[in-house]
Amino acid sequence: MKPDELRLASGVLLTDQYQLTMAQLYYRMGIHETRAQFDHFFRSNPDYGVHHAGYCVNAGLESLIDWLDEAVFGQEEIDTLRSQRSSRGEQLFADDFLNWLQNQFSAKAINLYAVPEGRVIHPNVPIHVVEGPLAIGQIIETGLLNTVNYQILIATKAARVKQSSQGQVLMEFGLRRAQGLGAISGTRAALIGGADFSSNVGTSAVLGFPPKGTHAHSMVQVFMGMGAGELEAFQAYADIYPDDCLLLVDTIDTLESGVPHAIKVFEGLRRKGHQPIGIRLDSGDLAHLSIKAAKMLDDAGFPDTVIVLSNDLDELVIWQIVTQVQEEAAWYGVDPDSLIKRMVYGVGTSLITSAGKAALDGVYKLVAINQDNEWIPTLKISENVDKTLNPGNKRVWRIYDDRGKATADLISLQGEEIENHSPLELRHPSMASKRRSLKESETTWVEKLLVPVIKDGEVVNDQPGIHEMRDLLKKDVDALDPGVRRLMNPHIYHVSITPKLWDLKQALIKKARVENAEPKSS
Amino acid sequence: MKPDELRLASGVLLTDQYQLTMAQLYYRMGIHETRAQFDHFFRSNPDYGVHHAGYCVNAGLESLIDWLDEAVFGQEEIDTLRSQRSSRGEQLFADDFLNWLQNQFSAKAINLYAVPEGRVIHPNVPIHVVEGPLAIGQIIETGLLNTVNYQILIATKAARVKQSSQGQVLMEFGLRRAQGLGAISGTRAALIGGADFSSNVGTSAVLGFPPKGTHAHSMVQVFMGMGAGELEAFQAYADIYPDDCLLLVDTIDTLESGVPHAIKVFEGLRRKGHQPIGIRLDSGDLAHLSIKAAKMLDDAGFPDTVIVLSNDLDELVIWQIVTQVQEEAAWYGVDPDSLIKRMVYGVGTSLITSAGKAALDGVYKLVAINQDNEWIPTLKISENVDKTLNPGNKRVWRIYDDRGKATADLISLQGEEIENHSPLELRHPSMASKRRSLKESETTWVEKLLVPVIKDGEVVNDQPGIHEMRDLLKKDVDALDPGVRRLMNPHIYHVSITPKLWDLKQALIKKARVENAEPKSS
Repeated sequence: MKPDELRLASGVLLTDQYQLTMAQLYYRMGIHETRAQFDHFFRSNPDYGVHHAGYCVNAGLESLIDWLDEAVFGQEEIDTLRSQRSSRGEQLFADDFLNWLQNQFSAKAINLYAVPEGRVIHPNVPIHVVEGPLAIGQIIETGLLNTVNYQILIATKAARVKQSSQGQVLMEFGLRRAQGLGAISGTRAALIGGADFSSNVGTSAVLGFPPKGTHAHSMVQVFMGMGAGELEAFQAYADIYPDDCLLLVDTIDTLESGVPHAIKVFEGLRRKGHQPIGIRLDSGDLAHLSIKAAKMLDDAGFPDTVIVLSNDLDELVIWQIVTQVQEEAAWYGVDPDSLIKRMVYGVGTSLITSAGKAALDGVYKLVAINQDNEWIPTLKISENVDKTLNPGNKRVWRIYDDRGKATADLISLQGEEIENHSPLELRHPSMASKRRSLKESETTWVEKLLVPVIKDGEVVNDQPGIHEMRDLLKKDVDALDPGVRRLMNPHIYHVSITPKLWDLKQALIKKARVENAEPKSS
Repeated sequence: MKPDELRLASGVLLTDQYQLTMAQLYYRMGIHETRAQFDHFFRSNPDYGVHHAGYCVNAGLESLIDWLDEAVFGQEEIDTLRSQRSSRGEQLFADDFLNWLQNQFSAKAINLYAVPEGRVIHPNVPIHVVEGPLAIGQIIETGLLNTVNYQILIATKAARVKQSSQGQVLMEFGLRRAQGLGAISGTRAALIGGADFSSNVGTSAVLGFPPKGTHAHSMVQVFMGMGAGELEAFQAYADIYPDDCLLLVDTIDTLESGVPHAIKVFEGLRRKGHQPIGIRLDSGDLAHLSIKAAKMLDDAGFPDTVIVLSNDLDELVIWQIVTQVQEEAAWYGVDPDSLIKRMVYGVGTSLITSAGKAALDGVYKLVAINQDNEWIPTLKISENVDKTLNPGNKRVWRIYDDRGKATADLISLQGEEIENHSPLELRHPSMASKRRSLKESETTWVEKLLVPVIKDGEVVNDQPGIHEMRDLLKKDVDALDPGVRRLMNPHIYHVSITPKLWDLKQALIKKARVENAEPKSS
């Protein structure tokens, strides 16, 4: 798309058609400015197939704020909507409604509460809560979901990959396999969740990170095509980047050609007082080749060089590599722990697409509507009881146990006393028999998770930087039970509701069925 | 991101760091303007798990051209690169190189050949071929891959979903689950590959399609929250959109509440001379509910209303729905074929993320470099012989058999006589024993697949519109053997190389190993 077209497609019209038809209906009925509350939450942790996540990592809020800033109905947006036609060929959106959009609509004329970026989050817990005029809350739904669902998904995947690497440096390499410009927010989310750096030059620059990279096979091919070889290619690279010399050694044959050539070049660098960085392996049995290459580098006196691994890595592949190194390295005279500590991982496709589960099932649901200054909770019943909404104006709390570990997230109604309440009664959101009571001695801290972000159109708090988000994440992950952190088959973290919310939900379900299910006799 | 930041991140710096470090190396060696040729191709059809594609659909070229137009090193880009530091804290990119980027670099100073968008494409066949200055070809690699890989992936998925729906209307609903702004190109690709419409308002407008949608559960919830009910909500919608009345019937109970309420409203519309559009089902057993709902609509005299289905659909789910309707409808007095013909599918997550396989393994490889006006083929050997490149300047041909069906794509070297050659000798790209000979009587047509798109910096052909692309696709799909089109376990379409290319490849493999694999003795 041309820049103007991209601007039109990425602004307030980054929305689903039905948001606008519903908004016009509310306008026509005079309830477009009635206050309403919408909750954003996700239903389940990503299930990647043979493994699934035990928790998610929040990301996307600052991007959402930026989008809200740009989400305005200017002349071009209005002209676009005015040109839409009904099935009978009439103007679909009437001029008075368009006039309201152009002159009265402000995407930020809401109150927004959110869990901060970087925090560990769990299914069914409201992450973003929008309270504001009904038509505005509806129109911004799609943009909100588009912005935050994907970033949560990728931050979560990055946290898993980082975890499997045992804290080694992780580089995000996914730009070429991402969903077009989605790569920009994907890179951001990866940097929040676990990637230390990215190869993505522009996005890294905007976010204040140095981009990282080595060289490609094509560089060696160029030299070969011009009658030289791999050694000359490596030498040329070392000459130009003597202090950043990281060589890709698998263009021809990793152990027979690439590593010996790299060592030769490294020796030259050392003679000139430079410290070579290391090598990159991009094909073959990466664990085995790492061991053999490490041995060769050690023997040549380069035990401090790193070994960068890439090629379709994900959390399980990295875990397998680490395990194989632990089992196999000693046979070749290599210390496995030292080798694991010199490894660096470049992860592309699997990270930027969240391979195995390419979407978070995040939803945005109307939970309350204000009438005569009273909040009326609303419900959406589902055949699947787990999908029936938690209605009403709610608050979200994290309960820490006597070990200081997070033991449950608790959803209450507004105004309920939680912080000083003892014992705390926790109910499963849909199963009547599942309940739990926490005595005062069993809890050390009750933490409020949602913080105000936008208040009556103004952003009320500075957003944390990515380094601060990483600190929040580390703290939250440390507070998880190790079973919840586990990569495979994790424990289920408790997300509970209060008895009061339970009672409200059940009453509403009953009421909805009675009032609506008798149309045949009416 | 702010608009300025987004511009920086989505322009020429939408690239991987190593492209720039390599480009500077070529600049320093004085070979940055040496002509080189790069091929873009993908290695395998998407494998979604229990099913995989038998062919892909090309998409993304026009978006690529638009990106190349914007890929310039302006002052901000140059300042960004100038601020990068080496490990020793020195300026990483030297001023003379930055000066070249700012004043001499033009992303379109290349010759670009491409397979047109909408055409059926196969693994290992060059889809985009870039011939131009080495440093330019390298710097645009990432942007090219980012733009076209994802669009091919989604156009392919859309074609499969459309196929499983037996040609019924398909609506793309994925905006809220896409990778941020990646949704824009995803919607475009879906419209090329099989979606008739999209809910995405902005992108639909830019591409000239009317956006589509119904209403959400939240609209019914609003009415319930305000003391009214589903019937009142439906009535309000019908009042405002009398000629576009499509009602979501599963907020409370599909068969007990939603459908009866919809029928009541439709009766009112009919009395006023309007034709109701239909209903949407978004939960439960969609096949069974469709049959029961169809029966109720038929009995009420609305046999022409459509039934829109949504809720985690993909090609297999739709196939299963159609099959179940065929088996079950008659029991309830509903004609299965009529029901199948009134169905419309709204597909979100699975389409926009290509669920099961969220990335195309598209690559961009250096295949030749020009020295003294002679093209020298280049090679990248792989441990996996299937991944060893097809080297050199090549041409791509599609061979049609005596039934008019496409029987193979053939990759030749430039200058080889193919169109009037008989018999045609076809070799497998890597397996010596696999070969095939086609007599003149066995072929009806040999078609050149790559067409010139950019010649010396100028776009030489108008790009087809999306409707034309759909025509190309239909023609190509019709020319596929039904076994190749099959959704499950498709036949493998032959992609072959000429004996001359086979010989060149083998000679280069041998040469590379001999020249480079003796470093220990040197």
